[in-house]
Amino acid sequence: MAFGESEITARLAAYAVSAAAGELPARVRHEALRSLFNIVGCTIGGARHEIVDRADKILAAFAGPQQATLYARGRKADVLHAALINAFASSIYSFDDTHAQAVVHPSGPVAAAVLALAELRAVSGEDLLTAFALGVELECRLCKGISVPPAKGSMAWSGTGITGGFGAVAAVGRLLKLNTEQMRWAMGIALSQASGFRAMHGSMQASMMPAQGAPVGLRAAIMAERGFTASPVALEGKYGYLTVFCETPDLDALAGDLGSRFELLSNTYKAYPCGIVIQPIIDACLQLRRENAIVVDAIARVDIQGSPGTMALCNNRNPKDELQAHVSLHHWVAVAFVRGTARIADMDTETAVRDPVLMAFQDKVEAVLNPALASDATAVTLTMRDGTEYRCAIDHCIGSATNPMTDADLERKFVDMAEPIVGAVRTTELVGKTWGIGALADAGELSRASA
Amino acid sequence: MAFGESEITARLAAYAVSAAAGELPARVRHEALRSLFNIVGCTIGGARHEIVDRADKILAAFAGPQQATLYARGRKADVLHAALINAFASSIYSFDDTHAQAVVHPSGPVAAAVLALAELRAVSGEDLLTAFALGVELECRLCKGISVPPAKGSMAWSGTGITGGFGAVAAVGRLLKLNTEQMRWAMGIALSQASGFRAMHGSMQASMMPAQGAPVGLRAAIMAERGFTASPVALEGKYGYLTVFCETPDLDALAGDLGSRFELLSNTYKAYPCGIVIQPIIDACLQLRRENAIVVDAIARVDIQGSPGTMALCNNRNPKDELQAHVSLHHWVAVAFVRGTARIADMDTETAVRDPVLMAFQDKVEAVLNPALASDATAVTLTMRDGTEYRCAIDHCIGSATNPMTDADLERKFVDMAEPIVGAVRTTELVGKTWGIGALADAGELSRASA
Repeated sequence: MAFGESEITARLAAYAVSAAAGELPARVRHEALRSLFNIVGCTIGGARHEIVDRADKILAAFAGPQQATLYARGRKADVLHAALINAFASSIYSFDDTHAQAVVHPSGPVAAAVLALAELRAVSGEDLLTAFALGVELECRLCKGISVPPAKGSMAWSGTGITGGFGAVAAVGRLLKLNTEQMRWAMGIALSQASGFRAMHGSMQASMMPAQGAPVGLRAAIMAERGFTASPVALEGKYGYLTVFCETPDLDALAGDLGSRFELLSNTYKAYPCGIVIQPIIDACLQLRRENAIVVDAIARVDIQGSPGTMALCNNRNPKDELQAHVSLHHWVAVAFVRGTARIADMDTETAVRDPVLMAFQDKVEAVLNPALASDATAVTLTMRDGTEYRCAIDHCIGSATNPMTDADLERKFVDMAEPIVGAVRTTELVGKTWGIGALADAGELSRASA
Repeated sequence: MAFGESEITARLAAYAVSAAAGELPARVRHEALRSLFNIVGCTIGGARHEIVDRADKILAAFAGPQQATLYARGRKADVLHAALINAFASSIYSFDDTHAQAVVHPSGPVAAAVLALAELRAVSGEDLLTAFALGVELECRLCKGISVPPAKGSMAWSGTGITGGFGAVAAVGRLLKLNTEQMRWAMGIALSQASGFRAMHGSMQASMMPAQGAPVGLRAAIMAERGFTASPVALEGKYGYLTVFCETPDLDALAGDLGSRFELLSNTYKAYPCGIVIQPIIDACLQLRRENAIVVDAIARVDIQGSPGTMALCNNRNPKDELQAHVSLHHWVAVAFVRGTARIADMDTETAVRDPVLMAFQDKVEAVLNPALASDATAVTLTMRDGTEYRCAIDHCIGSATNPMTDADLERKFVDMAEPIVGAVRTTELVGKTWGIGALADAGELSRASA
């Protein structure tokens, strides 16, 4: 390790405030843009979801002045409320991004925080993109640094819940031009509010845990700017973040090779709106259906080999509603074979989750653990009533780091999400503004166009 | 255990919503009143502190409508902001209450949440007191249930940070008349936001961690009332609260003997405005000084035997400011011998913490671990320049469960806190209204009188 254990927070804070935009390789900047593009599409796509609506209406009673846009909701609110609701919308369909190694969905909290700030203070699109890139980078590093097997927490904690505020505070703190001391306080304030565990999966609160990172990080940076102090060694200090969230953190993964290794380059974008560990299974099922002209009624059983992550998080038969369907591999196997699709519409509680045909099909699906499989891999065996077997192994699913979504794929996904919400004309405008955010003199323009 | 492990959340939720006020023994009701009385005094006493001022001013920019009183600040704000700032004020001097076994300061988050709610909805003083009692009871049970040595977390986590929201949500949920299902969601929402670790001690963020429990619990109850769901088994469920915060929870301590054992009866109130584990040391030093007519200049050294808690949390020499002085036994030993007091004024950064006489005296103080000592005990040896030794052992400090503050002590403490802030006349009125809250038809009256 090329740095001392006592320097972790200082090192990351200094990097966040002083890394020059020009130090980010073009590939990193483009990946940051892809991450931002994907999450803006997800935010608009989720903005009118019934649960987002409910949260916004309940909390609006306590919200402050009209400072920042609630995406696609035709209203403004104070920046903390806007950041919370926009971040909540961005993950409500589980369609957001995921780091290829650490189970974190990094962009939601960071994007919502910086976009809200850009309506409160003057921020250029170029600066916003750089800050967003650094925030996502540090969030991914933190999650990777604490996701060290066999840390008992690695599965129980909500990865985004406990690291999202750190990404958001790094990005916002940079835009506020905090000095290193202030950034250390800001990081401390945010880290001391890190929270969330996976028992909430399948409930409305599931997307609220990562969403909290946006207001937590935004508020922490604003407080530190005004001299509100916290421990300057929140990560490595005695009784600090690393003590409570991890037994043996990987400090090199967290704070090594700053400026030369970029975890942002391992960010991935889902092709299907459900748990990341279900994606390879859907690939396999759609491929089997397509290539073998399968007649659904002739299927006897489907045997899935699941990775450890798949089995831990998504081996959930008979979901009762959309939220539980997000994390049910059985539901999505049924959808893939019966409908030949895997879209947002395919997890609607009424028309999909409670569809008797899909429900019945789940009885044919069995998943078993294959500990050798990575999270982006699976092997599926399809057995027909006549005994015929078909097999499909996926080594790297579509949307994985090895088999990434192309820019065109991302644009198709954005349009699919945004068109039903804001219409075709506005969607085209937003696609252009988001890809082109680096050229905006006032980054707030994107949010205002998304109202 | 007389209940199943899978019933923990359900059991506690059912108790919170359905325990009849009449089931609380008179002794429990009176202890609840003492807890509320103490924390209202602390809230008023801390309301004008510079750090409270700073937090309120920064966050007021994002606050909503004037729904609830900011104690002794002459303003109202939305209930979430008011609950946060009032809870923050209540612990800013570390003068709040502490459970005798679990290191939790239970009343701050619960009181701030229910008092804010009482200005938003109609709540009688009697109902508020019952809800407050049950919230504090459940918060203490949770902290006791997870404070099982050698759980590594027991020292690193902020006890109040990770249990305060639970106390607040139980109390507010009861006042909102949630049904058991809603209360389970509410508890889940709040528990999934539990956060805070002790590395923040000595910084402004230290009191913000427990304070967050107030808005977290208040918001969670209001969201669940409107149908916002969370895991109904947040405590015991797979990947739930007990998994992440404790290796081997004491489920009997948490959920056994509901309605017959009352942890609230082990709540204690500090005699001195500093870390709970410093209290016996101050007792000993003041007693030595008083009984032996000590001439300070003749003191050669002071040897302290500290309990494990004392040594872990407060063995901190040379604090730089008031916040660090809260948790420095060396500072308070100096104060006790040099000034013969231990008041709020004795931790002022300028006139006390940086007082050269007090700073120099700290060099004479040495603390060593005595693992046999309880948190409310110490043994102090005073050695004079001429070789004379004096010894004082404290088995149970003033304000401990065994040697509690009397009602008259609490009233003196309230007056000492409130008079400099709101004046003598208003203080007398507030003393009366707080002792008499059970008779108020509208509990909001207390807060309005504290504006």
